[in-house]
Amino acid sequence: MRSLISLISSSVSSGHHFFSRLRTRRSSTLAQHALFSRRAVAMDASEEILRKALAEKQSVVEAQGNALRAMKSTGAAKPEIDAAIEALNGLKLEKASIERQLQAALSGSEGSLNREAFRQAVVNTLERRLFYIPSFKIYRGVAGLYDYGPPGCAVKSNVLAFWRQHFVLEENMLEVDCPCVTPEIVLKASGHVDKFTDLMVKDEKTGTCYRADHLLKDFCNEKLQKDLSISPEKAAELKRVLAVLDDLSAEELGAKIKEYGIIAPDTKNPLSDPYPFNLMFQTSIGPSGLSPGYMRPETAQGIFVNFKDLYYYNGNKLPFAAAQIGQAFRNEISPRQGLLRVREFTLAEIEHFVDPENKAHPKFSDVANLEFLMFPREEQMSGHAAKRIPLGEAVSRGTVNNETLGYFIGRVYLFLTRLGIDKNRLRFRQHLANEMAHYAADCWDAEIECSYGWIECVGIADRSAYDLRAHSEKSGVPLVAQEKFPEPREVEKLFINPVKKELGLAFKGNQRMVVEALEAMNEKEALGMKDTLESKGEMEFYVCTLEKNVTIKKNMVTISREIKKEHQRVFTPSVIEPSFGIGRIIFCLFEHSFYMRPSKAGDEQLNVFRFTPLVAPIKCTVFPLVQNQQYEEVAKVISQSLTTAGISHKIDITGTSIGKRYARTDELGVPFAITVDSTSSVTIRERDSKDQIRVNVERAASVVKEVTDGRTTWAVVWSTFPHHSSGSADE
Amino acid sequence: MRSLISLISSSVSSGHHFFSRLRTRRSSTLAQHALFSRRAVAMDASEEILRKALAEKQSVVEAQGNALRAMKSTGAAKPEIDAAIEALNGLKLEKASIERQLQAALSGSEGSLNREAFRQAVVNTLERRLFYIPSFKIYRGVAGLYDYGPPGCAVKSNVLAFWRQHFVLEENMLEVDCPCVTPEIVLKASGHVDKFTDLMVKDEKTGTCYRADHLLKDFCNEKLQKDLSISPEKAAELKRVLAVLDDLSAEELGAKIKEYGIIAPDTKNPLSDPYPFNLMFQTSIGPSGLSPGYMRPETAQGIFVNFKDLYYYNGNKLPFAAAQIGQAFRNEISPRQGLLRVREFTLAEIEHFVDPENKAHPKFSDVANLEFLMFPREEQMSGHAAKRIPLGEAVSRGTVNNETLGYFIGRVYLFLTRLGIDKNRLRFRQHLANEMAHYAADCWDAEIECSYGWIECVGIADRSAYDLRAHSEKSGVPLVAQEKFPEPREVEKLFINPVKKELGLAFKGNQRMVVEALEAMNEKEALGMKDTLESKGEMEFYVCTLEKNVTIKKNMVTISREIKKEHQRVFTPSVIEPSFGIGRIIFCLFEHSFYMRPSKAGDEQLNVFRFTPLVAPIKCTVFPLVQNQQYEEVAKVISQSLTTAGISHKIDITGTSIGKRYARTDELGVPFAITVDSTSSVTIRERDSKDQIRVNVERAASVVKEVTDGRTTWAVVWSTFPHHSSGSADE
Repeated sequence: MRSLISLISSSVSSGHHFFSRLRTRRSSTLAQHALFSRRAVAMDASEEILRKALAEKQSVVEAQGNALRAMKSTGAAKPEIDAAIEALNGLKLEKASIERQLQAALSGSEGSLNREAFRQAVVNTLERRLFYIPSFKIYRGVAGLYDYGPPGCAVKSNVLAFWRQHFVLEENMLEVDCPCVTPEIVLKASGHVDKFTDLMVKDEKTGTCYRADHLLKDFCNEKLQKDLSISPEKAAELKRVLAVLDDLSAEELGAKIKEYGIIAPDTKNPLSDPYPFNLMFQTSIGPSGLSPGYMRPETAQGIFVNFKDLYYYNGNKLPFAAAQIGQAFRNEISPRQGLLRVREFTLAEIEHFVDPENKAHPKFSDVANLEFLMFPREEQMSGHAAKRIPLGEAVSRGTVNNETLGYFIGRVYLFLTRLGIDKNRLRFRQHLANEMAHYAADCWDAEIECSYGWIECVGIADRSAYDLRAHSEKSGVPLVAQEKFPEPREVEKLFINPVKKELGLAFKGNQRMVVEALEAMNEKEALGMKDTLESKGEMEFYVCTLEKNVTIKKNMVTISREIKKEHQRVFTPSVIEPSFGIGRIIFCLFEHSFYMRPSKAGDEQLNVFRFTPLVAPIKCTVFPLVQNQQYEEVAKVISQSLTTAGISHKIDITGTSIGKRYARTDELGVPFAITVDSTSSVTIRERDSKDQIRVNVERAASVVKEVTDGRTTWAVVWSTFPHHSSGSADE
Repeated sequence: MRSLISLISSSVSSGHHFFSRLRTRRSSTLAQHALFSRRAVAMDASEEILRKALAEKQSVVEAQGNALRAMKSTGAAKPEIDAAIEALNGLKLEKASIERQLQAALSGSEGSLNREAFRQAVVNTLERRLFYIPSFKIYRGVAGLYDYGPPGCAVKSNVLAFWRQHFVLEENMLEVDCPCVTPEIVLKASGHVDKFTDLMVKDEKTGTCYRADHLLKDFCNEKLQKDLSISPEKAAELKRVLAVLDDLSAEELGAKIKEYGIIAPDTKNPLSDPYPFNLMFQTSIGPSGLSPGYMRPETAQGIFVNFKDLYYYNGNKLPFAAAQIGQAFRNEISPRQGLLRVREFTLAEIEHFVDPENKAHPKFSDVANLEFLMFPREEQMSGHAAKRIPLGEAVSRGTVNNETLGYFIGRVYLFLTRLGIDKNRLRFRQHLANEMAHYAADCWDAEIECSYGWIECVGIADRSAYDLRAHSEKSGVPLVAQEKFPEPREVEKLFINPVKKELGLAFKGNQRMVVEALEAMNEKEALGMKDTLESKGEMEFYVCTLEKNVTIKKNMVTISREIKKEHQRVFTPSVIEPSFGIGRIIFCLFEHSFYMRPSKAGDEQLNVFRFTPLVAPIKCTVFPLVQNQQYEEVAKVISQSLTTAGISHKIDITGTSIGKRYARTDELGVPFAITVDSTSSVTIRERDSKDQIRVNVERAASVVKEVTDGRTTWAVVWSTFPHHSSGSADE
């Protein structure tokens, strides 16, 4: 049976962007490249010196060996030979020492080992306490599918409820709920049918599939980490390959795989050439087999296709935002990274529709003073680190493209940190220019640092008008907005009127192509033609559909600029899209909340999740101190009050020692424990400080309610109620 | 573009059980049969008389016609002929009158016409206000897929939040969240791969698919309603066919289709024989194409496969319940009934695991006094109506099989009525004995009456140990519970010990088969053998794997009964499963909440949804009475307080008349409207009474909060605050 641990490979980089609408292979990880190079420079200093030293030492050892053999063959004296042997042994020891140093440098810092151990501790706890369960475990599971067990499910539902409160309710967003089953035409329009692919190779004999870039990456990493004999030049080459891995075309990847002689890892069989595999789960809608459909790879398309109705619902006014929470599906070739790269996951997406000419946001001032780690393009390119920048400054300086994008960056920061994400391990990284889709205006990822490194958890992109235009074209339904002018505006417009009769006489059957080419001229070209025709009477004009020049005469086209009155402007709105990978956020939250502390006896390490009351799966436990009917009655009364107050809680009436019971619920991240040790008053213990207060039975539930609702704090409560010194009752 | 209305066919009966684990075709609608027959008897009285009268009149008309022709041919006198013609015309008029009466009787009562009109009014409003949107509408949609637009989505999320509070939190259930993508082996074990089918026929020329039972049903209904010439006997036959429709095998259905000459409705082409079509959406997991998977048809399997871990999580104690909310998928052949029969829907399912020997429930007394419409098996069989029975009585008399089942019936009743389902249009109908799966102990459906008739919305079944056993067998992982005895119990046990040496000598290579056959004997067989061997020394014994008898001698096997001490009992728990079709509940809720009232001027009918505050998509609107900066400022302050209090609301600052604005939000079911008509105090209007009170600006948000939270009622508020007589401010 698989365990969570065994499912989590230690692979760190994610390979491609999770939240980019499409995995545009050719542009996706130049940022990683830049980051990598920067880190590589820092790390390489010692690594390169060691590799050079090792290579030099190797040649010295070889030279000494040769000298020794020469001595022996020429019959040198024994003391001389002994001295040479001793020298050789000394050199070998020195070489071994350098090898050890290099090995140490390569196998990662102590930090990386600690990260692995830390993750194991977290994941062990998560699995043991059923936060996660590998799906269909009794059938040996399915890679990339996980269940949330009871506490995980409660955390997820708390995170989603807060998301809904923080975004949908506070921002008056229009939430929709669309099906997962999606007909092909929708995903054809969005580009997913054609482009949502990864490159795959097959074992030529068994047919087993591998992600081509994974095999190449594994090969390079293995060589770099295990093979001490490679030259510094070779090492540099392998690192270059790693850095540009995601930019390689199918042909380039295939060539590298051939060049390095990479074979199927399980069977040692030869591999096929890489070819694209579409990552959508395909199915068929209805019984005919004639309507292909897919399980949606994201929730956004459901919003775009509804734009017209939603715009109407909003009183035909911009801006407005629509939101959707739901399942999305990606049929990964071979999922790695356990809980971070899964085949089915919950997305929460916002599509904020805005006039492209006015991306100001009325509430931007609410977030302008926030200051947190930002990692703009320039810093990445110049090898600097992320830095704290006030959001207002980032927008006013143009680092962040516009106020609306900036507003969402601020709101995402507040959302994540209020959940309990460590603000020092959260940064907003801007996509590099060539990392973004060609249509995107600007794009920032909220990255959270966890044991896997910096992980993209929220993507916040200004996608311009791309998506609405794509669906307008495919469906024939205009997805546009109107701005009515208070009074008509005079607009100068360019008119190109081909004279069809003259063109027909001149070009006969080619007339249509020439007309279309003339009409397709942009303003500059058209005005250039107007000038030339006026001055020279004719000009050569390239018609791409004919693949040749034709001669256009003055009488064949009229080009003019005219003033027109316009009463409204019709345009395709821009969309700003914050897209949240809920599972990834939760996993990072688990890591940021986890710590260990010694038991009272000091003989073992106890696990604690320091969940905020907002996130905690259970807000409170109720423990009768000893098994006793009176105490159990009191516990039931308190439990009833907690239920009425809507506080999720659990009674534990087992006879286990109170210390063990505290430890058990600390491991579930329960913030408060009510211990019944009398029939009139009880103690309330706070998880992290382990401080206890004494409260009347009648007040117990309401105190917990006030603190978990955020209407007061533990510090206030602590200063209000008598303290209970942990005697026999404590751990 | 499709509209909701056009998508909703008027077909009423659902054809098969929605919540039965499998569509066990041969047993599914005998209950409908019984119901149908009962209704049919009542209705038939007049219908049959009319059919008979019509047939008689027809023959009288024919006779008179013949008489007339005979008169003419024999040259009768003109006055005689004229009299005969007059008589014939009189008879024809009488016949036409009977036809009209029959037509009226067949086309349904006034009630059914009203139901259609009512549904049209509701669905029109739902569509116009974006409660629902046909999915992918700009691409002409996909049958059976709907989006929830903003208010629909809010209602759904309120219903689910209440479900979680009412069941998961109040009952301490273990909620899990499993993927939709499910590997084949899981659904093979559950039986869905083999049995989750509907019978389909294909147009032999175009390949268009139809549900076989739908075509037969349409044919029968059409004949019965439109063809007045069919004999009473024929009408009775067609009604019989309709009643047993779901019990027909593929062969029987095919034979009926042939007999009646039913052809493809669109093309008039011949049809194929019926064959089973699996209703699961199939897909492939991973890139190899070798791992078939399905989109789950229900959420329950995810709980069953996790039983072992959940039982452990619960401290290895029974009973406990697990719950799951999530999407489920059924690839209907040709979805009808609009919003009630869809291809993707949200299920909320509970699996309550219980010791089969003890199905008492500690909280049963909390619901024992509830009294509501129940429709036990006996009432259905004997043609009586549903009747009000106290739940405690139903359980103590054995009408409901056990307390746990009864407890859930009570909790479901509370859940539905608190949402706003009309308790007079809600009944719990017991499955007939042959309507249930063979393993089920008892099964009740919560049926809600809506414009489609009585609709199954929640299924509550005692499924015994079926599901856990199926997965134990397929996976090889025992899914069992233990009961440790306080002290060891003495149990008499049967031991069968084949003497392998003797059997080997006698049967050589067949020894293993004989041993297995001996060990497989049940108690009765074994004790019989014991007696025979003791009296006769040997006996003939049939070994099925050898397909022959062998002679077993006394020395080849020892059979004994021994007293053994047992410290625990190991058993497969029973499961009681309440399964909620959330979309169906919401649709019925919409119908039960909808009403129309005249506008103040009386010139139009205004639509209102009388949603409870719990369900209402928006709890409150804020209207500045006139467009005016001061009032808008006050509105913003109140809005801020509402946000802080977590009350979903909307400001409407359009200059539209206040009456229109009230009407607009009545149509969304908003319970309260705050109208700002001064800077110090405002009015709060309740939707259904249209009563208004006057409240200080500072108190406005908290008053709304208290009423929507259920901490007070409108009646109390009404008696506390000064009333505002609707002058200019009202509609």
